Amino acid sequence: MSKQKNMSTNAVLLMHCPDQPGIIAVVTDFINVNGGNILYLDQHVDREEHVFFMRVEWDLTHFSIPKEKIEDYFNTLYGQKYNMSFNLYFSDTMPRMAIFVSKMSHCLYDMLARYTAGEWNVEIPLIISNHPDLATVAERFNIDYHIFPINKENKVEQEAAELTLLEKYNIDFIVLARYMQVVSADFIGHYPNRIINIHHSFLPAFVGAKPYHAAFERGVKLIGATSHYVTTDLDAGPIIEQDITRISHKDTVSNLVHKGQDLEKIVLSRAVEKHIERKILVYKNKTVVFN
Amino acid sequence: MSKQKNMSTNAVLLMHCPDQPGIIAVVTDFINVNGGNILYLDQHVDREEHVFFMRVEWDLTHFSIPKEKIEDYFNTLYGQKYNMSFNLYFSDTMPRMAIFVSKMSHCLYDMLARYTAGEWNVEIPLIISNHPDLATVAERFNIDYHIFPINKENKVEQEAAELTLLEKYNIDFIVLARYMQVVSADFIGHYPNRIINIHHSFLPAFVGAKPYHAAFERGVKLIGATSHYVTTDLDAGPIIEQDITRISHKDTVSNLVHKGQDLEKIVLSRAVEKHIERKILVYKNKTVVFN
Amino acid sequence: MSKQKNMSTNAVLLMHCPDQPGIIAVVTDFINVNGGNILYLDQHVDREEHVFFMRVEWDLTHFSIPKEKIEDYFNTLYGQKYNMSFNLYFSDTMPRMAIFVSKMSHCLYDMLARYTAGEWNVEIPLIISNHPDLATVAERFNIDYHIFPINKENKVEQEAAELTLLEKYNIDFIVLARYMQVVSADFIGHYPNRIINIHHSFLPAFVGAKPYHAAFERGVKLIGATSHYVTTDLDAGPIIEQDITRISHKDTVSNLVHKGQDLEKIVLSRAVEKHIERKILVYKNKTVVFN
Amino acid sequence: MSKQKNMSTNAVLLMHCPDQPGIIAVVTDFINVNGGNILYLDQHVDREEHVFFMRVEWDLTHFSIPKEKIEDYFNTLYGQKYNMSFNLYFSDTMPRMAIFVSKMSHCLYDMLARYTAGEWNVEIPLIISNHPDLATVAERFNIDYHIFPINKENKVEQEAAELTLLEKYNIDFIVLARYMQVVSADFIGHYPNRIINIHHSFLPAFVGAKPYHAAFERGVKLIGATSHYVTTDLDAGPIIEQDITRISHKDTVSNLVHKGQDLEKIVLSRAVEKHIERKILVYKNKTVVFN
Repeated sequence: MSKQKNMSTNAVLLMHCPDQPGIIAVVTDFINVNGGNILYLDQHVDREEHVFFMRVEWDLTHFSIPKEKIEDYFNTLYGQKYNMSFNLYFSDTMPRMAIFVSKMSHCLYDMLARYTAGEWNVEIPLIISNHPDLATVAERFNIDYHIFPINKENKVEQEAAELTLLEKYNIDFIVLARYMQVVSADFIGHYPNRIINIHHSFLPAFVGAKPYHAAFERGVKLIGATSHYVTTDLDAGPIIEQDITRISHKDTVSNLVHKGQDLEKIVLSRAVEKHIERKILVYKNKTVVFN
Repeated sequence: MSKQKNMSTNAVLLMHCPDQPGIIAVVTDFINVNGGNILYLDQHVDREEHVFFMRVEWDLTHFSIPKEKIEDYFNTLYGQKYNMSFNLYFSDTMPRMAIFVSKMSHCLYDMLARYTAGEWNVEIPLIISNHPDLATVAERFNIDYHIFPINKENKVEQEAAELTLLEKYNIDFIVLARYMQVVSADFIGHYPNRIINIHHSFLPAFVGAKPYHAAFERGVKLIGATSHYVTTDLDAGPIIEQDITRISHKDTVSNLVHKGQDLEKIVLSRAVEKHIERKILVYKNKTVVFN
Repeated sequence: MSKQKNMSTNAVLLMHCPDQPGIIAVVTDFINVNGGNILYLDQHVDREEHVFFMRVEWDLTHFSIPKEKIEDYFNTLYGQKYNMSFNLYFSDTMPRMAIFVSKMSHCLYDMLARYTAGEWNVEIPLIISNHPDLATVAERFNIDYHIFPINKENKVEQEAAELTLLEKYNIDFIVLARYMQVVSADFIGHYPNRIINIHHSFLPAFVGAKPYHAAFERGVKLIGATSHYVTTDLDAGPIIEQDITRISHKDTVSNLVHKGQDLEKIVLSRAVEKHIERKILVYKNKTVVFN
Repeated sequence: MSKQKNMSTNAVLLMHCPDQPGIIAVVTDFINVNGGNILYLDQHVDREEHVFFMRVEWDLTHFSIPKEKIEDYFNTLYGQKYNMSFNLYFSDTMPRMAIFVSKMSHCLYDMLARYTAGEWNVEIPLIISNHPDLATVAERFNIDYHIFPINKENKVEQEAAELTLLEKYNIDFIVLARYMQVVSADFIGHYPNRIINIHHSFLPAFVGAKPYHAAFERGVKLIGATSHYVTTDLDAGPIIEQDITRISHKDTVSNLVHKGQDLEKIVLSRAVEKHIERKILVYKNKTVVFN
């Protein structure tokens, strides 16, 4: 679904290809020559893998190629020639995001506060949960809330129902906001690199359940949170953002949980924002996160 | 060996015992009643384990119990009654520290700069290495440098020779400053909780060799360094201090190593300083690090 | 107004006095001898000013002195003798907090999310604003919202009306959550060290209006936020908490504002939490913030 | 003076000009077409000032334009046409750095340790001081050490003598490493944007003398250090790098100084490294610091 945010529309090109001389030139020429005004350009060359990555954003106001033909032209002119993988996005099309929650509200509130304040160019039409607890939060913000309790017996069936609902709502990507169920490989397959999770540790330390307890046991002096795209390997997908906070011997597990919550919500929101802004490229289980 | 730093001498008591009402009172009374002037007091109660930890430091100038009898008196009056484990230190006795190095100089230089500037109340009479590379550094600072090359065949023998040398130099504790050999269980047994190592990752992530390469592979957005007491479990001993620095997709492994070195030397020096100041208590593979 | 949070009630004593031997002992004895169970003790001696600060919290379940008499007994026995300044609080009495806002919602949402989740032992019955914009936020959380538009002519009158309302709601302390009006000296006089403000810079840098613009002009590489008690000197009151985030030449003023908002809400919420937990002592325009 | 570091030589172009379409293309084309291999490219557009900044580094091995003619060709072809300000550097020419010190050694040691370890592509042939204290440090590293005591009467004369010496040693830039004298406007005029200073506060807070004492008075919860190019306004020149560390009520001024020293040396060394790597562009009293 599209919603116009302002008069002018921007195009965003996210691409990668084998590194060769002249790529920046051909892409910027393509834009300039056709009347586009470049608003943003960031590039990176991985000199080990010899891969070139770029994100370029331009104003389409005077761009002579019609929106619906840009992808085709670009692919024909350069895409195949340079063996490029690319995605093209337009600012007048807002991504549609669903949030999965269980019982903890802190990440959910942080995202809904930003959404309500108009900080994010996104639509959040749907919240899914395996518990009824956060229905009142969804209600405060007038967002549809659907409950799918999960157990060993009904998991496959419930995930299928969730997928149907996500499709009905035209969801582009999913955010697991301290959602306590592990999503299946099949589910993930429907949203590759489009499910963002927050794990309450500094990955790869303390994967799996109860990382705060594990951190407490180990006697670490810092705790962390990590947001990443979900893959079939638990807590092993491409990392988008991480941060830490200092703790000491004075902190009980309860303190770690409490301090950790501030981290979790900030780290998750930063990752979601980068995704919404089309500033993340995934390559070989790692991310290039543009500025 | 003792060296008098200033006219007045302080006593430092580091203790722990089962938590009971009145411990702070009895210890502070003991000091006050006998003419001591308390300069520092920090305490912590682990309410899960019901253990009480305390560090108290006092000026002995007008203290009526002679230095050499304090331990005895204290143990008789309170030690046994409260089931205390404690250590008593005096500021006019400087700990003697040996540094083990391999080829990297950054941690060594950082410690020697502080030592030379008089920042640390310590003696550093000996540097041991498995390579000759850093002999010139030792020479710049007029510190004895002994080389013990290590391989599978000679390791037991070399460690025995090192232990003999350490004893000859009256070494109290050892700092492994990016020393690349793994010390044996027997060696560790001679210096329990008295060997400080710097590991170039945020433990427990990336234990063992090449943590920067592993961090690079995983695509983390932060790298860390950890200083800890060495135990027989590799990189699993009680953590003293940790810190991190931010990295991005732009950082090659070489960048990680470079940025990591600043972390390593600061984290190691902070840990060594806390050890010298008698501000670390080890309990169940974790540390209480007093302010 | 009181609201019982759990079965047992704790007492919190926050005190300072001229440093002398034996204070910790007399206070802990007072608690122990009368059947109290110490849950928390932290103390600090300012050796320049020779002032002793302490916060001690104990379980009153078996405490033999009735709640309403503790202050009196304590003062008679020790307060005068040691020349103590102290405050006594009980955990079954929740402080009542009013929030002042203008148009920005991020700090308000952060605090209300924590409040709703039961994180804070506080009552928030009232939100005051000089604009109508955030009325819907208050409504989402069922909190009374009163609008007092301020201009040069009506300021004195409006502040008087606000004070009347605050008194009617039994407000104990006030949080200015990016409230854009400067409160008068008279107003402050009604709530000494009981008005917490968030200033969007790292004080004392960039006091007053538009600190992000000033930071941008100066070309700093870090921006900060500071929470402090409001005094009659603008942005000069005792600092409670500060934090920073890194910026670069790539950040426009708009980016600084955006990044700054995450800082502001976290820094303000940390300060408010410490205040609610009775963990702040103000002394000579500085704060002792207990752990 | 030149010293060859490795077989291949790189060229580094640092430039800025009014923003226009096509600049990246013309510069990269210039390099590619003439056989250069681009190793590094980073650019930034200041959309408020409409200024384009770029740093590009390329391998000259197969570059067809002789080193000594590149500047001329580039200027003729593009420099004037695009109204560019640019500097061209070659990796086989190491900048020559002088360090000014007074009595504190921590920054000096940090830089000399990196220098000795071969981390920096620089020559450090000269240390100047207004005191004799650090002569032994210079001696340890075999660097010439010249003493110029400064007072009101001799300052002009001494600065003139220093400038003569700096010229004799062919010094390209100067680092003030906790040098306690204020350098004159005339002196600065000889090395515009080529004198790096470390100020022991988070500028613009606490300019001038005794910032730690001022920070202590204000009761801040963080202290900082700032490295910047020296201009005629004291502590007001373009900032290169800043960082902070956390403090609390427990920290005396002496603690602040001690914790601050770790900051100072790291912040100064980072700035010096960026300067050596030709990664800093100064524009309107601010810096663009390339990655």
